[in-house]
Amino acid sequence: MAKAVKAVKAVKAAKKKEKPIILITNDDGVTAPGIRNLIEAVKDLGHIVVVAPDKAQSGMGHAITIGHPLRLSAVNLFEGIEAYQCTGTPVDCVKLAVDKILHRKPDLCLSGINHGANHSINVIYSGTMSAAMEAAIESIPSAGFSLLDYSIEADFTGARKYVRIITELMLKKKLDKHSLLNVNIPAVPESLIKGMKICRQAYAKYEESFLERMDPHSRKYYWLTGEFQNFDKGRDTDVWALENNYVSVVPVQFDLTNYVLKSKLEKSWKQNQ
Amino acid sequence: MAKAVKAVKAVKAAKKKEKPIILITNDDGVTAPGIRNLIEAVKDLGHIVVVAPDKAQSGMGHAITIGHPLRLSAVNLFEGIEAYQCTGTPVDCVKLAVDKILHRKPDLCLSGINHGANHSINVIYSGTMSAAMEAAIESIPSAGFSLLDYSIEADFTGARKYVRIITELMLKKKLDKHSLLNVNIPAVPESLIKGMKICRQAYAKYEESFLERMDPHSRKYYWLTGEFQNFDKGRDTDVWALENNYVSVVPVQFDLTNYVLKSKLEKSWKQNQ
Repeated sequence: MAKAVKAVKAVKAAKKKEKPIILITNDDGVTAPGIRNLIEAVKDLGHIVVVAPDKAQSGMGHAITIGHPLRLSAVNLFEGIEAYQCTGTPVDCVKLAVDKILHRKPDLCLSGINHGANHSINVIYSGTMSAAMEAAIESIPSAGFSLLDYSIEADFTGARKYVRIITELMLKKKLDKHSLLNVNIPAVPESLIKGMKICRQAYAKYEESFLERMDPHSRKYYWLTGEFQNFDKGRDTDVWALENNYVSVVPVQFDLTNYVLKSKLEKSWKQNQ
Repeated sequence: MAKAVKAVKAVKAAKKKEKPIILITNDDGVTAPGIRNLIEAVKDLGHIVVVAPDKAQSGMGHAITIGHPLRLSAVNLFEGIEAYQCTGTPVDCVKLAVDKILHRKPDLCLSGINHGANHSINVIYSGTMSAAMEAAIESIPSAGFSLLDYSIEADFTGARKYVRIITELMLKKKLDKHSLLNVNIPAVPESLIKGMKICRQAYAKYEESFLERMDPHSRKYYWLTGEFQNFDKGRDTDVWALENNYVSVVPVQFDLTNYVLKSKLEKSWKQNQ
């Protein structure tokens, strides 16, 4: 934790120069190419501190670690960048970074670049977006970035360009402290990307079917599989934007209240209250 | 899986008699007192099928199991009720129940009764609510129930009463297929509960601080701890209702789009699109 002392000093230095502190995390783990590309895209825009899971944590949603303790250790993976790996979930990383490394709230939190889509309903399952949401709950403006390409060899050129544009916009025009963006980048060469579109979340999801197998002891087990289906034909959705080679930007909130249903129930359930 | 055949028959029989199929799950595990109380409260209101985790899964949020397969096995825990335990998360339970046990969507999904509060921001971390949300995404009206008492000896009398009232209301007045309710019950004797209140989600959360400890090998580790703080003084919130001995009912949605910020960014980021 000698590095944590360094972090405190860096935070103080950055504050003096008014350089923003940018916390970077992800859900594919600290060694994933996506996080390296995210760091490369923004490293001159602020003082960067990286706290990311020590292994892949895809599909962890907003899971937190309650039943066992967490470990945190410094890693020398990114030249000139202070970085730590954590044994917990993406959400744990953000909590630990604020409480035990930075000892203050960073000015911005960036999560990703995720290997694979986090558009539509995926926002709910995504560790990348849950880490960003945790930051937004903690009053840290935040964005999660995802590239629609699972390959370890994925081309992040276009993604890096838009990560930088969006980060600059977020730093320049101060957004509300609870602001949270879900950014997805289409898997096409940079030259084919038509620009950004501010979108709503599509009602599109995986239609699950479990693959049933038999183990050597004649006991069944099941693998989660599924096929993506878009039930939402709107042209204002993230899925539409991505299909049409736009970068989709969905502003996300953590107040999950369904106000329409609230009004309805206030009337129709009245006699039962 | 002989029982799964039974489930299919029961589903057919229930359909003939037009008895609703009610899927029950939780996040505290199939042996928790809360799920037994939930079953007791509603077992005569429909054909009940239970699919719940085989161990406690609190704080799992909307996690799904991607990296390893799942097991499912019949359990004889509830008299006359078909029940299964699953090695996965609460969300996995709902997915598996629909795909591999019921082979159709149930008419209603009930999750809980959780041991502990799931009001305010807890809705995001809660396995109980994530299971219910998974059902709502799958077009199954759903409700998650939580009692504000962690004790294994907790008194579920008041909780059972309101679980039943709400389940009957949901079955009687058909709600939209994506309807989802987050119901919390105060930890007071039934006679002191003043009724139900339809609420919005409070901005109230745990202020985390990690407890730092040293292992026998002089390496630090961290336990997540936190103190609950309510930043939201509204009298229309779930936290207010519970503090005033009401059962809180928050209608929940899974479209996380922040439409206010969307409009704002559409204007202010225009030149960059």
